[in-house]
Amino acid sequence: MNNKKIRVAIIGLGRLGAIHAKNVAEQNNDFDLIAVCAAEEQLKWAKTQLGISATYTDYRKMIDEEQLDAVFIVGPTALHPEMTIYALNAGLHVFCEKPLGVDLQSVNEMVQTIHSHPKQIFQSGFMRRFDSSYLYAKKMVENGEIGKIIYIRGYGIDPLSGIESFTKFATASDSGGIFLDMNIHDIDLVRWFTGHEPVRTWALANNIAAPELEKINEYETGVAQLEMDDGVIATLVGGRHAAHGYQVELEIMGSNGWIRIGEHPEKNLVTLFTNKGVVRPVVQDFVERFSQAFIDEIKAFAANIKNKTQPEATVEDGLKALKIAKACQKSVDTNQIVDIKL
Amino acid sequence: MNNKKIRVAIIGLGRLGAIHAKNVAEQNNDFDLIAVCAAEEQLKWAKTQLGISATYTDYRKMIDEEQLDAVFIVGPTALHPEMTIYALNAGLHVFCEKPLGVDLQSVNEMVQTIHSHPKQIFQSGFMRRFDSSYLYAKKMVENGEIGKIIYIRGYGIDPLSGIESFTKFATASDSGGIFLDMNIHDIDLVRWFTGHEPVRTWALANNIAAPELEKINEYETGVAQLEMDDGVIATLVGGRHAAHGYQVELEIMGSNGWIRIGEHPEKNLVTLFTNKGVVRPVVQDFVERFSQAFIDEIKAFAANIKNKTQPEATVEDGLKALKIAKACQKSVDTNQIVDIKL
Amino acid sequence: MNNKKIRVAIIGLGRLGAIHAKNVAEQNNDFDLIAVCAAEEQLKWAKTQLGISATYTDYRKMIDEEQLDAVFIVGPTALHPEMTIYALNAGLHVFCEKPLGVDLQSVNEMVQTIHSHPKQIFQSGFMRRFDSSYLYAKKMVENGEIGKIIYIRGYGIDPLSGIESFTKFATASDSGGIFLDMNIHDIDLVRWFTGHEPVRTWALANNIAAPELEKINEYETGVAQLEMDDGVIATLVGGRHAAHGYQVELEIMGSNGWIRIGEHPEKNLVTLFTNKGVVRPVVQDFVERFSQAFIDEIKAFAANIKNKTQPEATVEDGLKALKIAKACQKSVDTNQIVDIKL
Amino acid sequence: MNNKKIRVAIIGLGRLGAIHAKNVAEQNNDFDLIAVCAAEEQLKWAKTQLGISATYTDYRKMIDEEQLDAVFIVGPTALHPEMTIYALNAGLHVFCEKPLGVDLQSVNEMVQTIHSHPKQIFQSGFMRRFDSSYLYAKKMVENGEIGKIIYIRGYGIDPLSGIESFTKFATASDSGGIFLDMNIHDIDLVRWFTGHEPVRTWALANNIAAPELEKINEYETGVAQLEMDDGVIATLVGGRHAAHGYQVELEIMGSNGWIRIGEHPEKNLVTLFTNKGVVRPVVQDFVERFSQAFIDEIKAFAANIKNKTQPEATVEDGLKALKIAKACQKSVDTNQIVDIKL
Repeated sequence: MNNKKIRVAIIGLGRLGAIHAKNVAEQNNDFDLIAVCAAEEQLKWAKTQLGISATYTDYRKMIDEEQLDAVFIVGPTALHPEMTIYALNAGLHVFCEKPLGVDLQSVNEMVQTIHSHPKQIFQSGFMRRFDSSYLYAKKMVENGEIGKIIYIRGYGIDPLSGIESFTKFATASDSGGIFLDMNIHDIDLVRWFTGHEPVRTWALANNIAAPELEKINEYETGVAQLEMDDGVIATLVGGRHAAHGYQVELEIMGSNGWIRIGEHPEKNLVTLFTNKGVVRPVVQDFVERFSQAFIDEIKAFAANIKNKTQPEATVEDGLKALKIAKACQKSVDTNQIVDIKL
Repeated sequence: MNNKKIRVAIIGLGRLGAIHAKNVAEQNNDFDLIAVCAAEEQLKWAKTQLGISATYTDYRKMIDEEQLDAVFIVGPTALHPEMTIYALNAGLHVFCEKPLGVDLQSVNEMVQTIHSHPKQIFQSGFMRRFDSSYLYAKKMVENGEIGKIIYIRGYGIDPLSGIESFTKFATASDSGGIFLDMNIHDIDLVRWFTGHEPVRTWALANNIAAPELEKINEYETGVAQLEMDDGVIATLVGGRHAAHGYQVELEIMGSNGWIRIGEHPEKNLVTLFTNKGVVRPVVQDFVERFSQAFIDEIKAFAANIKNKTQPEATVEDGLKALKIAKACQKSVDTNQIVDIKL
Repeated sequence: MNNKKIRVAIIGLGRLGAIHAKNVAEQNNDFDLIAVCAAEEQLKWAKTQLGISATYTDYRKMIDEEQLDAVFIVGPTALHPEMTIYALNAGLHVFCEKPLGVDLQSVNEMVQTIHSHPKQIFQSGFMRRFDSSYLYAKKMVENGEIGKIIYIRGYGIDPLSGIESFTKFATASDSGGIFLDMNIHDIDLVRWFTGHEPVRTWALANNIAAPELEKINEYETGVAQLEMDDGVIATLVGGRHAAHGYQVELEIMGSNGWIRIGEHPEKNLVTLFTNKGVVRPVVQDFVERFSQAFIDEIKAFAANIKNKTQPEATVEDGLKALKIAKACQKSVDTNQIVDIKL
Repeated sequence: MNNKKIRVAIIGLGRLGAIHAKNVAEQNNDFDLIAVCAAEEQLKWAKTQLGISATYTDYRKMIDEEQLDAVFIVGPTALHPEMTIYALNAGLHVFCEKPLGVDLQSVNEMVQTIHSHPKQIFQSGFMRRFDSSYLYAKKMVENGEIGKIIYIRGYGIDPLSGIESFTKFATASDSGGIFLDMNIHDIDLVRWFTGHEPVRTWALANNIAAPELEKINEYETGVAQLEMDDGVIATLVGGRHAAHGYQVELEIMGSNGWIRIGEHPEKNLVTLFTNKGVVRPVVQDFVERFSQAFIDEIKAFAANIKNKTQPEATVEDGLKALKIAKACQKSVDTNQIVDIKL
């Protein structure tokens, strides 16, 4: 375990980038965080808080100048493909956040480059696969404890408190739409748990909770029903209106039992008995909900590099999730059932 | 309160008929149970357990011979229309179980007859509208406590333990299909809570949990996605595979809060800490889940008769729920989105 | 079942008296409510709401003049003994609320009178023994499903919202002290579940939540630890400060599992997801918590009369519970361990 | 943060020692794990799993020969004092597991030595103070959100599955008794939350669940009632019989609300709906329940060393908890109320 450390850099110090940076620096003994690349105003934080002196605003320069083994790509989604391609061509292992990108053409190039560097690790940020609750459920399903899967329901619903900042973000950038933005992980979970692919979808969306989103061509809530290739049925709900917090919930109905993960997104083991009733405090965002999974996925990345193993979730998994999210969006836009081609 | 009692008879002493009979006889002071009409083998029970001497196997004869004010119709669904028509024409108030019938033609006749007897009470068995949990939720919604409704999800899932008896029943009779059999109440709840009508549906169904149902043209699980006329989205899940018990669940997502009713169908206030984990025992069937609602709906029927008020849930509500269930079924059968005409 | 009805009267139309009156009149077919005796201002309610014309302010007069089979005694606790004695001597069956009385001398007389009328039913209002949650737990314990009882914990805690009215009441009357007022049912449950008697207790009490109670020699919270004759240990907590509602909770630790009853006193099957967190609404008082048990205990009283069977909970059970509550109070008053003589 | 690492060794590689060793080596960037001292058979694990080459069976030799800044003492409780004294005299910072020791004389020496080295950090393993649930509750209490504390209840109950190994352990060693072994942390929490000291206790104990413990002078379950110096009342329950898992629960009743921590010791966010009912899987032992707290307490130890700050929980806190546990035990042994001298 106390072998030579993996020399690593991070591109992007936004909310999630900062989490990865802190986890690499403080919660993990596998990596040496050598350099960061981010917007000028974020670099100060890296210097003072993490003690990183090698800071860049140009990721190419950083990759060229530093002696790196691997890189974490947490920049704008649209840039994931070019950053990944540059890093792979420079011989680095790549951890790239989700989703792979926004337009399929550049993502396809990215995928080809990944395939042409089979000895380098490429891992994408499907952190939910490292969450202890999903892992517990996965094992139960694999052990046949709930029989055959019949129906699966995934919710990805952001707290209402974030709607303003989302509106700003979506005004400036392409969010990719409600399903890409909110349900990409749910789509991955549906595929991971069932081991099957969706073939058709009918999706609906509305802005009842946030009429202001109409102007920027966004939906607050989207609901997609999917038919899987083996007859399993799925429902995805994406939204940004949860008054109580951050609701990421997955229900798996089996022929001999059901599992719900995150039914109540409890923050801790505290129960309150107050004039509000009997209350469980709940998590407020993905940072809180998946704090440990973010730590565990980078441990797994280090292990993959050391053991020369590719991660279970491949780039194809990322590509398919992207295509499925886009098919749901297309169904909303066309008001029709959409066949899903993977 | 201690006025003259309402003279009443019951047609049908199956599972639900027996519940109504016992409730009328033992849990209510408004009615005198004068006579029953049922299959020969069930009459003995009425004599010995309820002390009813006036027993019939022909409902027409009973209505003709006894001096009745009202009748409870709990016979086979297909006979609901003719029984209702006969009773109304004989001047009786009618409480008729759900659904109104199976074929639309006879139901339409039934509806016309009801309309031509406006002074007689006609009440159908939407007992969920009398359940304290739904009433509590309804009041919250009406008070605006969860804002505007965005999405609504209704589950009607029978216990796995009943699948054999269902198979026998459905082999012999027309169940009406998964949505009519399992979700008619959920459809009523969606309409009741939203105050709006569905306009389109896409439904899917499978027999993963009960392949034997293929032979008798039934589905074990059905899932319907509905678009409401105001943009609200709904999901209905009907099934017969719940390993834990009887799951009737309704979720109402509002722009300022959510309500779930029956998320865990707790049987009582007991929590167990055993080698199985921390366990809440749950209700096993509709009899247990809605025992109090069955008592309360007949109290309301008596009050309607005494006060000459028609029930909130009208025959049109019953008719529309029937049409919506049939539209869902048609979507499964045709594999297409179906427009709903009400 | 449709036999001759039991002619019954009620003495006392306070909060609980009114509940019994309504249940007798509306939720039960066994009794004819013939007459009521109460304070003048309460009689109007009985006339208009229940249609009772035979109303009295003198219970002796009512018992003498009406042709009664049985009587419900829901008057002031201090009068329970004399009322019971008078009714028994008049040949009536008696249902008497808890506790039996406040001073042991009159209660002892009452007990002797009960013993000298063995053919008349005497039932006291241990309604918890009719609550479905306790019955479910009792059966589990009897079936050995949690092994041998090790420890038992009972909470009887009133809502904070009632503290003002309690203060008024306790200023005017003798509440009997925190343990008699709040834990008499818990004491009965400890005895009922374990089948054993407490032999010693050490009790503490404080007024941290309600310093104003000092002036009237009352305690807001009391905690008693009891040693049972077989080594089982018990803790009783009585209080009047619950911000969330009415917490009546019983925990039974067994050598092979635990049971908690009323851990969260859920009002219904509703779960709320709001900006307060994930919330279960809870019951607010004993009326709400035990509404069904109040109905069921009077059904059992009718059945006992018809079947000439004495209730499971005897007058000795009532007497012992009273003595135990007084021993706990004495421990607080003397600041010492108290030996319990039953 | 990326300063020079703290050179550290660990004494003891039992269950908890191995956890600390792994956490130091893998979950933390503050320490360099230089050496370990343990029984011969445990050293192999340290070599192969942690890559530690400097291994010892004599802790004095290790402290003398290695260039250490700090040491983790996780050896047998009885040796905590002499190990601490040796390490402090050698100039090291000390993290010592709970409890401080078993006999008061050697603990008093230990305390004196700690006081005579005020510039060296001494931290004891009150890891619960680092658990996010307790921290959340502590903040609520400090913010006055539940008003004034009235009553506090702490459970420390080990899983039934561990009773055999406990029996072996307690046959060979002095466990210190049920309260010292199971409730030392609960005692600390009572003091931490209330900010007050207990003045008297009456404790009871039994072996109903494990009669075999009689032979070795141990109790399976102990219950202590405590009177605090400000009138607050507390109940402690220690046991080793939990069929469902590891129940560490704390209830804090306040004059304006209650908090329960660990009411149901949920393992994760999974809810199961199976033929067992609705089930929450639960944690099985302290390793699982406090895994994050063990990580966080050593981070805090590192921060204390770097910042030259003594931990919030002082050695006096450890000493008082020890004395209180012993007073509870004495009450069981003498069958009397015991005054607590701190």
